Amino acid sequence: MADHCPPDTKDYPATERTRVRRSPERGSHAHADVHAIMDAAPLCHVGYVINGAPYVTPTLHWREGDYVYWHGSAASRFLRAAEDMPVCLTCSIMDGYVLARSAFNHSVNYRSAMVFGTARLVDDVEEKTDALRRFVDDLFPGRWDSLRPMTRQEVKATSVLRMKIDEASAKIRNGPPGDSDEADHPVWAGVLPIESRLVPPQPAPGLPDGIELPQSLAELIQSGRLR
Amino acid sequence: MADHCPPDTKDYPATERTRVRRSPERGSHAHADVHAIMDAAPLCHVGYVINGAPYVTPTLHWREGDYVYWHGSAASRFLRAAEDMPVCLTCSIMDGYVLARSAFNHSVNYRSAMVFGTARLVDDVEEKTDALRRFVDDLFPGRWDSLRPMTRQEVKATSVLRMKIDEASAKIRNGPPGDSDEADHPVWAGVLPIESRLVPPQPAPGLPDGIELPQSLAELIQSGRLR
Repeated sequence: MADHCPPDTKDYPATERTRVRRSPERGSHAHADVHAIMDAAPLCHVGYVINGAPYVTPTLHWREGDYVYWHGSAASRFLRAAEDMPVCLTCSIMDGYVLARSAFNHSVNYRSAMVFGTARLVDDVEEKTDALRRFVDDLFPGRWDSLRPMTRQEVKATSVLRMKIDEASAKIRNGPPGDSDEADHPVWAGVLPIESRLVPPQPAPGLPDGIELPQSLAELIQSGRLR
Repeated sequence: MADHCPPDTKDYPATERTRVRRSPERGSHAHADVHAIMDAAPLCHVGYVINGAPYVTPTLHWREGDYVYWHGSAASRFLRAAEDMPVCLTCSIMDGYVLARSAFNHSVNYRSAMVFGTARLVDDVEEKTDALRRFVDDLFPGRWDSLRPMTRQEVKATSVLRMKIDEASAKIRNGPPGDSDEADHPVWAGVLPIESRLVPPQPAPGLPDGIELPQSLAELIQSGRLR
């Protein structure tokens, strides 16, 4: 999405809750770092509070500049609970296990972004439909126009939440274990990388003959990216 | 871990907060379903409340029966914030995109488990060390004994949280899009499956000659599982 935009060199504020204290060298508040993780993660975990207790639900998200969106059934109590409430939305990608010579130095290679804001319902029907179109087309370029159009009833049955990112931090670890000073301990050390990818598609049963996989989906699968 | 135990046929209670209301046919409270997802997921997202606001942090977890564990630096404000507090811990695995003929019927194949309880610090040094040993050996069988032993200072610098699962639900979607009645709309429909796997290991720079990858790690990589 950012391809046609000038580079965003801004930072989110390093506030009391987003300042990275453990291993600060792994942390960043740069828009570019936070957004890159959000855009690469296939899903996010949304945290909110109901009656003082925490709830964490997985969902797909999409982003436009400093705004993050997610959606669900208009009847979902989780979406209703998040409306006009403080939300923490976290995207995490695990890139591998880091095996060191001691238990203590074992780690994980990962990328995670934690963003905070207040979720607002997108009520305007046109704005909501536009947001859903961007959701679909960001994942699968050009798909929206090829679909059976959304009915008024379907739009009504779908809630979209939109949240301005007020505060955010990214945290990244990569590379080998950091215990080369213990290399004489005779145990295998290194990284077991994890790779997540799209594998060959499964056409729906009964898909009529002659309907081929669109080029854009074939390219996505080829790309090695999840989105 | 459950290999040597009799099958667990119990259910977690379906409470106000864990009853699956949206698509209840996808939901379960069975220990077996909840635990299978927790044991397959490489990481979890822990949600808790600080000053009324939600926080969601990714971490690795491990499980023993109805108890889930996670750990971190003893100096971590997140671990301290979760201690003796209500926590929601969610494990999610995304198995694929489900592409339908309409935007509305698009979906995701996934497995997720949401568990609730109150986190307790494991203070006893021996109990804490045992828990960490199970963490390492559950991921990488036999590794603990091959490592440089943990020092007293390292145990002290590590906090372990342990939570009895009081309430839990699992939710699973799999299979093709559910819109075969719209199969005449001429667009590709089906599933784009996602596969996450361990790829060839990267030995640490300076790993002495003659230290081979242990058989148990080779088997894990071969297995196609992440843990």
